[in-house]
Amino acid sequence: MELSQAIATWKEQIGHEYVLTDQAIRNHYARSTQPQGTYPLAVLRPANTNEVCKIVRTAVEYAVPIYPISRGRNWGYGDACAVTDDQVIVDLSRMNQIHEINQTLAYAVIEPGVTQGQLYEALAHTSLWMDVTGAGTETSVLGNTLERGFGHMPYGDHFQMSAGYEVVLSDGRVMTTGFGHYDAAKTTYLYKAGVGATLDGLFTQSNLGIVTKMGVWLMPKPKYVQGVVFSVPQEDDIAPLVDALRPLRLSGVLQSTVHIGNDLRVISSNRQYPWSLTQGKTPLPDEVRETLRRQLKIGAWVGSGALYGTQRTVATARHEIKRALRGIARLQFFDQSLLSVARSVTARLPQVEPLKRFNDRIKAAQSALDLLTGVPTSQYLNGAGWRSTSPPLSHTLDPLENNWGLFWLAPVLPMTGDAVLDLLKLVEPEFRKYQFEPQITLSSVNPRALCGIITITYNKQDPNEVEQAIACYQSLFTIVMQNGYIPYRVGIQSMHDLAEGSTVFWQVIQQIKTALDPGNILSPGRYNPILIE
Amino acid sequence: MELSQAIATWKEQIGHEYVLTDQAIRNHYARSTQPQGTYPLAVLRPANTNEVCKIVRTAVEYAVPIYPISRGRNWGYGDACAVTDDQVIVDLSRMNQIHEINQTLAYAVIEPGVTQGQLYEALAHTSLWMDVTGAGTETSVLGNTLERGFGHMPYGDHFQMSAGYEVVLSDGRVMTTGFGHYDAAKTTYLYKAGVGATLDGLFTQSNLGIVTKMGVWLMPKPKYVQGVVFSVPQEDDIAPLVDALRPLRLSGVLQSTVHIGNDLRVISSNRQYPWSLTQGKTPLPDEVRETLRRQLKIGAWVGSGALYGTQRTVATARHEIKRALRGIARLQFFDQSLLSVARSVTARLPQVEPLKRFNDRIKAAQSALDLLTGVPTSQYLNGAGWRSTSPPLSHTLDPLENNWGLFWLAPVLPMTGDAVLDLLKLVEPEFRKYQFEPQITLSSVNPRALCGIITITYNKQDPNEVEQAIACYQSLFTIVMQNGYIPYRVGIQSMHDLAEGSTVFWQVIQQIKTALDPGNILSPGRYNPILIE
Repeated sequence: MELSQAIATWKEQIGHEYVLTDQAIRNHYARSTQPQGTYPLAVLRPANTNEVCKIVRTAVEYAVPIYPISRGRNWGYGDACAVTDDQVIVDLSRMNQIHEINQTLAYAVIEPGVTQGQLYEALAHTSLWMDVTGAGTETSVLGNTLERGFGHMPYGDHFQMSAGYEVVLSDGRVMTTGFGHYDAAKTTYLYKAGVGATLDGLFTQSNLGIVTKMGVWLMPKPKYVQGVVFSVPQEDDIAPLVDALRPLRLSGVLQSTVHIGNDLRVISSNRQYPWSLTQGKTPLPDEVRETLRRQLKIGAWVGSGALYGTQRTVATARHEIKRALRGIARLQFFDQSLLSVARSVTARLPQVEPLKRFNDRIKAAQSALDLLTGVPTSQYLNGAGWRSTSPPLSHTLDPLENNWGLFWLAPVLPMTGDAVLDLLKLVEPEFRKYQFEPQITLSSVNPRALCGIITITYNKQDPNEVEQAIACYQSLFTIVMQNGYIPYRVGIQSMHDLAEGSTVFWQVIQQIKTALDPGNILSPGRYNPILIE
Repeated sequence: MELSQAIATWKEQIGHEYVLTDQAIRNHYARSTQPQGTYPLAVLRPANTNEVCKIVRTAVEYAVPIYPISRGRNWGYGDACAVTDDQVIVDLSRMNQIHEINQTLAYAVIEPGVTQGQLYEALAHTSLWMDVTGAGTETSVLGNTLERGFGHMPYGDHFQMSAGYEVVLSDGRVMTTGFGHYDAAKTTYLYKAGVGATLDGLFTQSNLGIVTKMGVWLMPKPKYVQGVVFSVPQEDDIAPLVDALRPLRLSGVLQSTVHIGNDLRVISSNRQYPWSLTQGKTPLPDEVRETLRRQLKIGAWVGSGALYGTQRTVATARHEIKRALRGIARLQFFDQSLLSVARSVTARLPQVEPLKRFNDRIKAAQSALDLLTGVPTSQYLNGAGWRSTSPPLSHTLDPLENNWGLFWLAPVLPMTGDAVLDLLKLVEPEFRKYQFEPQITLSSVNPRALCGIITITYNKQDPNEVEQAIACYQSLFTIVMQNGYIPYRVGIQSMHDLAEGSTVFWQVIQQIKTALDPGNILSPGRYNPILIE
């Protein structure tokens, strides 16, 4: 590695001010919600695809590993950090152009730096909605898509709802997936697969190229939306609920990604760990959990989804849902006008305690409806600060800014009640063992599978708790892998463990990597002996 | 190439009777709907994945190129033929096991040899429907999926609706995509993408591996289905129709792949070219076209789709569709009970001419409804024999058995009226020039794109017509490529032309090919100078 020559060249290529090497900035990028981030050599901030090409060529020339990030908010999975120390971060946040918003064919073409908030603003005066995640306004739309993240609406599977990736390869060549590699192509952003082998999947959750532009499909605003919240009292009631929701998803009555959170997930969105109530004791005693649950008037599980269409089609779907969930879950339907009325009524009343709580519930319903109608909200980031002993910063819920400790583990399971109970039985004892509380959401990312998001939050100020969190995560990771509930995505700390127990698939990935990036310059991982024959 | 050693080894590996080298059989596999098929060296018929692995290893050892086929019914695109002469066909039709049908999670796991008819039979007593293509009972479900073919129902995008591909690589290793490469995985057939780079797209429309098993998602039978046929009188009326259908597809009111055929496509499904009426003259005179149109009581374009749900949800969707297409298209709704009643009534009446025509229309509606409810039908294969001068065989509409001449060209276009008119303006003069009739269907494979299927049928007995057909196809191929309406799939004759005007994408494919199949043993294509640096 000839870092100094590389740095000098990069300064010429993209300008001195965008090649950052001072320690304060490197410290900033090394921050992590994990106990320990990785430490970069430098940070580059290119302005456009052409500069990315130059950066890559220089990296190859001087054998300096580079690691692209979009906005660096991959919280719970590694944040802005490379997999190892001593890589150069290529921060693409300056590349934040929205190249096109097409209202007729309902898509946008965006760069890596475009945030949820920015796209939301740009769509304000259109007839289109984006599909948002619960991660707030500052996260990258493209970055989430490349991680194959998901949202809350009918376009919840972000990978499936994107097309035409512009990719910078390790030698600086630029390629577009789908039909986009033909100059004349009229359907680059309209038809995902293209002709010949379909390559866009190759550039998601991988280190084979740097995606610098993509088409994102957008949902035409429906005439009417109604949110639905369903809850069940006891933990095991999740099983019949999931079994009743599956046919609704399979039949298309429920077109959106349904999310179901346990009580702890809901509670943690609303408040931090009750340190005083428990006198500092962890994990949360059952009776306190019960009290918090009652305060929020929730059951063991609370789910949400929405119905989109006209008043008429929504009414019809509502009828089907009511029938399917009768006797299984308590249902509440709500829409924007109901919430507006509720707000304007309560605003005129004296703000006594029961009314405050009612207001909190209106607020919670509004946050849910926001996520279901393409409005980015930060409300749910609160959960990441659950175990913090200080209150969130007033201006941001960014887990990094708040120095929150956070692991996310995201196993995929069959959409059956049995599978959910099995997973819970495996996971919950580990939380007790390590003195944490299992915040769990289950999202029906397609009609056949649930994605579980298991949150471990911990207090970064407490070295013992940090150790426990690491042990808890590692134990859970091993358990879900061994039991076949493989995560849809993992943090940088677990990538090298994915190859255990599976050889050919990762060998093939390695062969492709060697073919496309022989110098192993793009986002190299940790050495994995299994892959070396 | 050491063919004789390879043949001898294969005979030991899979049994003498499954290594076919005699000329009659090679002639049989060399048949094509194109003017000229390619000629194989031999045909192998393995029984299982293990035998496929052995075949591949032997092929590499003796440097003999092999070309896998599922059922060899890739009509109009190359049939059972390899891209070049002198490859060994690996016919996977004996591998026709259905490994699993899961009614709870609505999928099947199938091998390459499983036909539409076979899967249909296997599903007869379940609550599940497959999504069928119009190619009849004898075609491979897996083969169509790997070609990224499409059907007529909400599961019309077959690639998207499949998961967990078992792939034999060129060195005989076996890999499964998605989560399937983990032995313990519980969601191999439930969640397509897996973790890490998503590889299944790599094994579609490619020569990087042999897919020997896959999961296919199935649609739970809805309580009620209603078919809808919409037609417009004049050719240009297609534009407002497409523009009115797009919002219905985007909003999800129309959940199924909508297919729209022109008059010639509909006519050709019902009868052959009127040789006597035209006294042998081609192309079809306008006045005869008009007469045939009137006989079938159709307009310039006829579309079909279906609504799936309950009586109630279907009624609601029907209301939306009627409103959206008012003044734009004539609509007819029909369902199974209506057709049954019509049949039983007319069966009792004297079969005079007007009634016969009415019966034909009932039959046509039944064929349409079949395709919309997962019943494979061969009716639409008639179109491939349009220009034949002899009637179809009584026992089969297989274009190869009938020795029909057929090219299919499948450009993808934006789902806008303007794009359709543009494509028609480009395509139709070529048909006139070469004295053919443009049979065209437009299928809304997703809410943003139409896939055009342009059929050129020709009389293989007439050398002049064969020449004209080749010229017409080639001209049309060039035109759609130049105008950015890139085909979603091409025949073996056009694969090498795809690299023209696009370098990096195909270079990357070539790099991956070299990494995974350095001996270029699997389905090698023609030499393409563009890809050689």
